[in-house]
Amino acid sequence: MSVPLTLAVIQIGDRADSTSYIKAKKSFGEKIGARVIHEVLPEKATGEAVIAQIVKYNADQSVQGIIVQLPLPVHLDQHTILEAIDPKKDVDGLTGVHTQELWEDGSEIVLPATTRGILALLDCYQIPVEGKKVVIVGRSVLVGKPTAMAFLNRNATVTICHRGTKNLEEETRRADILVVAIGKARFITADFVRAGQVVIDVGINTLADGKLQEEVGKRKLVGDVDFESVSKIVSAVSPVPGGVGAMTVASLFENLLDLAQR
Amino acid sequence: MSVPLTLAVIQIGDRADSTSYIKAKKSFGEKIGARVIHEVLPEKATGEAVIAQIVKYNADQSVQGIIVQLPLPVHLDQHTILEAIDPKKDVDGLTGVHTQELWEDGSEIVLPATTRGILALLDCYQIPVEGKKVVIVGRSVLVGKPTAMAFLNRNATVTICHRGTKNLEEETRRADILVVAIGKARFITADFVRAGQVVIDVGINTLADGKLQEEVGKRKLVGDVDFESVSKIVSAVSPVPGGVGAMTVASLFENLLDLAQR
Repeated sequence: MSVPLTLAVIQIGDRADSTSYIKAKKSFGEKIGARVIHEVLPEKATGEAVIAQIVKYNADQSVQGIIVQLPLPVHLDQHTILEAIDPKKDVDGLTGVHTQELWEDGSEIVLPATTRGILALLDCYQIPVEGKKVVIVGRSVLVGKPTAMAFLNRNATVTICHRGTKNLEEETRRADILVVAIGKARFITADFVRAGQVVIDVGINTLADGKLQEEVGKRKLVGDVDFESVSKIVSAVSPVPGGVGAMTVASLFENLLDLAQR
Repeated sequence: MSVPLTLAVIQIGDRADSTSYIKAKKSFGEKIGARVIHEVLPEKATGEAVIAQIVKYNADQSVQGIIVQLPLPVHLDQHTILEAIDPKKDVDGLTGVHTQELWEDGSEIVLPATTRGILALLDCYQIPVEGKKVVIVGRSVLVGKPTAMAFLNRNATVTICHRGTKNLEEETRRADILVVAIGKARFITADFVRAGQVVIDVGINTLADGKLQEEVGKRKLVGDVDFESVSKIVSAVSPVPGGVGAMTVASLFENLLDLAQR
């Protein structure tokens, strides 16, 4: 007898973008025969209430993976909440145990899902990473930093840029592989790229589009890269939506499977 | 009544270089009125025996800081040994708790001593870091990675190079601040640098010098940078011995003081 793999997603509040991401996870899970529990707590839930839910799923043997959907309401401490997840069920790969693995030796049992998605995308198109110049724009704990470490562990030469970087265009044009994760709609334009590059767009930004902006189904999603102009210059650029977002969802379930099999 | 700050240094085996580093720590400690306990375990000590010593000092309220001198004999697992140190006494800043601080928010209560030494050296000479291009050669957990994170937290644009980097000279010549931590004697020659740079040499290498090589007192220490040729080109280069090594010892005791005061 087998039971389906089960992923519990805890959402605090009702941000439209979070709800839409969770829907994508649920829909992907259903396609591959996994079960996704979507647990919603009120926007004003206390840290204790959130942790109580996490503890419940930590103990629940029918659940193999737990996600706390980010970003959290500002009154909650992200570190404390995430660290409450049992690392054995941390499919997002964001707890300290997994960061430490990535940091120390690159054994990377559970890579953060977005990072795994980026690498999977490159693998899928057979784009080699070893020895390449990888420039990452954005230094977040969720994407920029773990992605930098993962590329470093794969023997790329890695440059990390951010809002404090001077002459950003000069840095980005040096890249063989350019990864952009800054959350600024269409920020990377033609001036930032050159022929021959592979550009990975991690940004998912909602363009305010008149009165439609509140309606999730009709939001216009764009990346951090101006696809229109950049795609005419570089060798390859990942689209938004699709691209990294889609690979990230798939990677979450790969992490779930990896953790369940340990 | 006050008691002197006390640092316990646990050495496993009798590597000459380790013994000499510990002497430097002891000598510095004495100068500033701190007590340094030097505990030596046999080369073949088991992990359990080493951890028993650590646990003893964890519990000893008269000891505020603990160092396990690296490198360890190959039969010991570095991660397990280091994680046995109470983070509140981890003056080397290498336990997961401190790595996580560095990784997550740059609050950096305890920076790894070498990283703190590098930053202190730059501060001392009033060399600004913000917005600078910092190129780090070496990606070790002890130096390269934490130093990269610390510079990133100070708004430098950081590139990490290593043995897999192609055209290393091209990368190093782009740096405003070049940090070299690879453990290869005089590897960085004139070809790797340009005028105007600040070069930080973290390497401490022993040059084999005929029959004298076994005698600690007469070893010839050189850095990863060929000081002779490089110093004629760049704005500033830190010497070996002295330079980062000296600052690292001082930083250890600053960490000790910071931890004791918490």
